Amino acid sequence: MTAPALLADNGDAEGTNNTLHEPISPDGTPEPGKLYEVPARNGRAVRVAAGQTIRVINTHGTQVCDLWAFNADNLNEFMSMEHLRAWIDRINPLPGDALVTNHRRPILTLTTDTSPGVHDTLIAPCDIYRYRTLGVEGYHDSCADNLRLALKAIGLRQHEVPGSLNLWMNIPFDIDGGIKWLPTVSRAGDYVEFRAEMDSIVVMSACPQDIVAINSRAPMPVHFSVA
Amino acid sequence: MTAPALLADNGDAEGTNNTLHEPISPDGTPEPGKLYEVPARNGRAVRVAAGQTIRVINTHGTQVCDLWAFNADNLNEFMSMEHLRAWIDRINPLPGDALVTNHRRPILTLTTDTSPGVHDTLIAPCDIYRYRTLGVEGYHDSCADNLRLALKAIGLRQHEVPGSLNLWMNIPFDIDGGIKWLPTVSRAGDYVEFRAEMDSIVVMSACPQDIVAINSRAPMPVHFSVA
Repeated sequence: MTAPALLADNGDAEGTNNTLHEPISPDGTPEPGKLYEVPARNGRAVRVAAGQTIRVINTHGTQVCDLWAFNADNLNEFMSMEHLRAWIDRINPLPGDALVTNHRRPILTLTTDTSPGVHDTLIAPCDIYRYRTLGVEGYHDSCADNLRLALKAIGLRQHEVPGSLNLWMNIPFDIDGGIKWLPTVSRAGDYVEFRAEMDSIVVMSACPQDIVAINSRAPMPVHFSVA
Repeated sequence: MTAPALLADNGDAEGTNNTLHEPISPDGTPEPGKLYEVPARNGRAVRVAAGQTIRVINTHGTQVCDLWAFNADNLNEFMSMEHLRAWIDRINPLPGDALVTNHRRPILTLTTDTSPGVHDTLIAPCDIYRYRTLGVEGYHDSCADNLRLALKAIGLRQHEVPGSLNLWMNIPFDIDGGIKWLPTVSRAGDYVEFRAEMDSIVVMSACPQDIVAINSRAPMPVHFSVA
């Protein structure tokens, strides 16, 4: 009988960048109302208490921001795209929709969206394997690593990389299921707001994808604030 | 600073059924060519060696079968729907498509599909939380638990419940992203075949959903064989 197989999990980054060294505070607690930057190609983790609202701003309009949310009291409960779709009976959330966890509890509510509402729930965050298939040799920043590094920067770790809510990522699908990878349709300064329904760790990655067109091949920073 | 939060993971079943006591063999190795049943509302795990083909049969035509695949040498590498969609540039796979893992490696290839090809990659496997939101009190069999129990029955465990490939599950979506939950369009005896691209643990759950219409509210068995 083959031994149970649980080797290296998926919690360790494949490389590193400044994300690891630039948390917004030692444990990710924000200063209310302060505007924080997620530098281009980097990630940030922030604590958002139940009832607080986080605003994520597409400062330049052309940038995708991968977003995750974890129950601050149990990182094994996290926002899940496949549970979200079952909850809202839609592929993409609209303002007013609750975003649920893998335990089917609302963790965030999408309260405001000044952009045209084009976001993606279908596509995995980019990772080193993705860049290898695109021909990159050596290391490339990735959203998966930005998640791992942003958590580590505030002293946390999760063994998995859940599917992300990909803000402003323009992945149109046709009725037969075919998808395309296109630049954003959002404008500079567009923002979304989420109200936390439980004490949450929210992680954002300013997607470093510079090979396919989703960030117009020029990764830019995004900004956020919590109030 | 709040302590790192990794409480109970998602690897333990919320209840039990015969899945735990009826593995096809102690370690899940199949007898080549033998027809095995996945009883209604239950799950089964089977080892499929690289190069072997598994056939999954919709014996009654009306049944959804949730399917997962894990690298037999490292259960932390598993078939992933959000990586699959990025790999094939489609929402749903077609014959000839490689189904990839969270490490973006082919684990199965969909080689044959005698059904109309309606399968789902969007919706999470059902779980106790789903049934609670549908008004069920007490325990209800679920695909998530069938995965956990089927693995445990052959001496394995995984801390997560990855998104599943939901064979024959009829979740049509419209161009605006709205989805519906409808009965299958497959016929009795329809089958799909997958060639394993690495040594794999394949887990199937004959979905016990009897409240929404996806199994015509009458869960039935499915069958499989490996050769």
